[in-house]
Amino acid sequence: MLPVRYELLYSDGNARCGIIHTPHGDIKTPIFMPVGTQATVKTMTPEELKEIGAEIILGNTYHLHLRPTDELINTFGGLHEFMHWDRPILTDSGGFQIFSLAVRRKLTEEGAYFSSHLDGSKHFISPEKSIEIQNNLGSDIMMVLDECPPGLSTREYLEPSINRTVRWARRCIDANRNKDKQGLFAIVQGGIYEDLRDYCFNELYKTNDDFSGYAIGGLAVGEPTEDMYRILKYITPKLPKDKPRYLMGVGEPLDMLEAIEHGVDMMDCVHPSRIGRHGTVFTKYGRLVIKNEKYSRDPRPLDISDNYVCKNYTRAYIRHLFKANEVLAQRLATYHNLWFLLNLVKEARKAIEEGRFKEYKEEFIKNYTMGSNSDWIKPIVK
Amino acid sequence: MLPVRYELLYSDGNARCGIIHTPHGDIKTPIFMPVGTQATVKTMTPEELKEIGAEIILGNTYHLHLRPTDELINTFGGLHEFMHWDRPILTDSGGFQIFSLAVRRKLTEEGAYFSSHLDGSKHFISPEKSIEIQNNLGSDIMMVLDECPPGLSTREYLEPSINRTVRWARRCIDANRNKDKQGLFAIVQGGIYEDLRDYCFNELYKTNDDFSGYAIGGLAVGEPTEDMYRILKYITPKLPKDKPRYLMGVGEPLDMLEAIEHGVDMMDCVHPSRIGRHGTVFTKYGRLVIKNEKYSRDPRPLDISDNYVCKNYTRAYIRHLFKANEVLAQRLATYHNLWFLLNLVKEARKAIEEGRFKEYKEEFIKNYTMGSNSDWIKPIVK
Repeated sequence: MLPVRYELLYSDGNARCGIIHTPHGDIKTPIFMPVGTQATVKTMTPEELKEIGAEIILGNTYHLHLRPTDELINTFGGLHEFMHWDRPILTDSGGFQIFSLAVRRKLTEEGAYFSSHLDGSKHFISPEKSIEIQNNLGSDIMMVLDECPPGLSTREYLEPSINRTVRWARRCIDANRNKDKQGLFAIVQGGIYEDLRDYCFNELYKTNDDFSGYAIGGLAVGEPTEDMYRILKYITPKLPKDKPRYLMGVGEPLDMLEAIEHGVDMMDCVHPSRIGRHGTVFTKYGRLVIKNEKYSRDPRPLDISDNYVCKNYTRAYIRHLFKANEVLAQRLATYHNLWFLLNLVKEARKAIEEGRFKEYKEEFIKNYTMGSNSDWIKPIVK
Repeated sequence: MLPVRYELLYSDGNARCGIIHTPHGDIKTPIFMPVGTQATVKTMTPEELKEIGAEIILGNTYHLHLRPTDELINTFGGLHEFMHWDRPILTDSGGFQIFSLAVRRKLTEEGAYFSSHLDGSKHFISPEKSIEIQNNLGSDIMMVLDECPPGLSTREYLEPSINRTVRWARRCIDANRNKDKQGLFAIVQGGIYEDLRDYCFNELYKTNDDFSGYAIGGLAVGEPTEDMYRILKYITPKLPKDKPRYLMGVGEPLDMLEAIEHGVDMMDCVHPSRIGRHGTVFTKYGRLVIKNEKYSRDPRPLDISDNYVCKNYTRAYIRHLFKANEVLAQRLATYHNLWFLLNLVKEARKAIEEGRFKEYKEEFIKNYTMGSNSDWIKPIVK
């Protein structure tokens, strides 16, 4: 039996909610996964992540392989022990970072040669090596090493790339030495072409018994939103109903709701914490740039919510912290933004369970795109 | 009745433990006070400060006056409300920062003219202005504006300076418009000269009824340790027994124990959190520079203690966070260092209560100066 299993609870159109069972516990889906690139979700403790409802986090294979090295993490019993996080972890394959961060990279059938962005040291990651690293990290869900084609790649570029991704996926299956403890997800590529998505998925499905789930890669990489939504709508419902579906690299509220509507179960992105650290926060009425002068005397919370930040801090105070370059500013904004997305998927789950997902989505979009100054929020000062 | 009152509980030689009653609750003494310069103790939340046993924190008048301004903080109900901290707060007078941070400063009998280190804007702080700012901040304990003489000042420099400090202290008394809600501490100057310390204290004591406590200023400013200890031993026991005694700017464990031995009740310093943010932590066996290569595979906690950091994180992990420039590194090291000093004063209180302070101090010093690699600490990995 595969170590990662999906249990469907409710469906509402193509939207669905369920449970993913993993060696480190269950995950309620749909779920957003905060990214812990360097064995820490930036600015947060594991306890705070639990407080905001994080059920699974990501670790980045490329970064952890380079520093402190997967071998070192392995001697500490794996990534869970090393970073003091006892809930599920998903690790990516390193492929995306090799293409976006590494320097002087060279792709061959065997794997990818590259120089570290940290110190220029030379490295090589093949499908086997990626799995070896992920085995060392001991994640609950591993990703196959795929080629990450540039956004808006042509059919001519994608066809050989997809075939290599499929061959690599099979090599990843064979390389996994922890088949009973670490699940492996396939990644469906194919750009913005329905037939290539079909082709890639069908090829991967031939070894379906070896995959604990399917990811959708190569979206949210610069293509127009309508292309992204079209492909999401096309391919997601075709993926196996009995396995989790993971849309990679998406963490914008409206994109997340669109993905959930078509049957996506898992999403991740560095975006919400990154914009938070730079002073932009999500609210019910859209984004708010807290550094703006107009919030300097604003006694209201960031948004109306019962989270720790909104209960205890005013916009004026958080703006002050940002202007003064205080770490607490980054902490509060990150906490708030991750809470916002985790609350979003929680509300989505409830709406699906109650068969009113479309209404929930419409209501959310109506508010979120209103661009209001949210004057209805009451001051926080007692 | 003065709004801040001291209650003596136990004495052990000149060392003593007691309670300071303030409008925002009681403080057990001796106590270390974490510094929250810009309305936040760097990297920490108020809840974490409570978790490590912080009973009172400091706010910096100079910084808060410049940004976000005391007037803005006042419209939010004062510093407690603004920063979400409901325990006692002490504010300094701004004098020390004017001399150490401001540019183009000019001292007159009236007050100090200076330009902001932030934007060069021109400002003026007099004793009356300092109290007005501190009244706006609403701290429980305010400090008089004094001249902060350079370390190792001569008698010739100090004599007129002390007289001005005394005149300014009286102007501060008169300026306080919240006599029933905010206590005012005098500051005894006098450099490393016993007779000047005597003189300064005796002059200040003439308006003793207006002071809620006495601070010792002008120590730990570059003078040799033996001079500092000599003056501490000389002047502290002479200060009124029925009022709290505050040694300004001291946060090194051995200096703190020396001060407590001579009867000091309160201390503060940015030092422990600053060295923490740069990767140096206190342990029972002295300081440890966690960034060092030799800790890269060290499975032991920073120190043996039951605090959150030592219970959950290895040296190897914290070193990794520092090398990767992760905010969590600064958080964990700050948390640990402030906990260390708050635990130190807690143990000191207990030792005084049990009449064994000297033994406690000797034992602490013996370990702390041993320079051991603390090999007896067990690995944290399960």
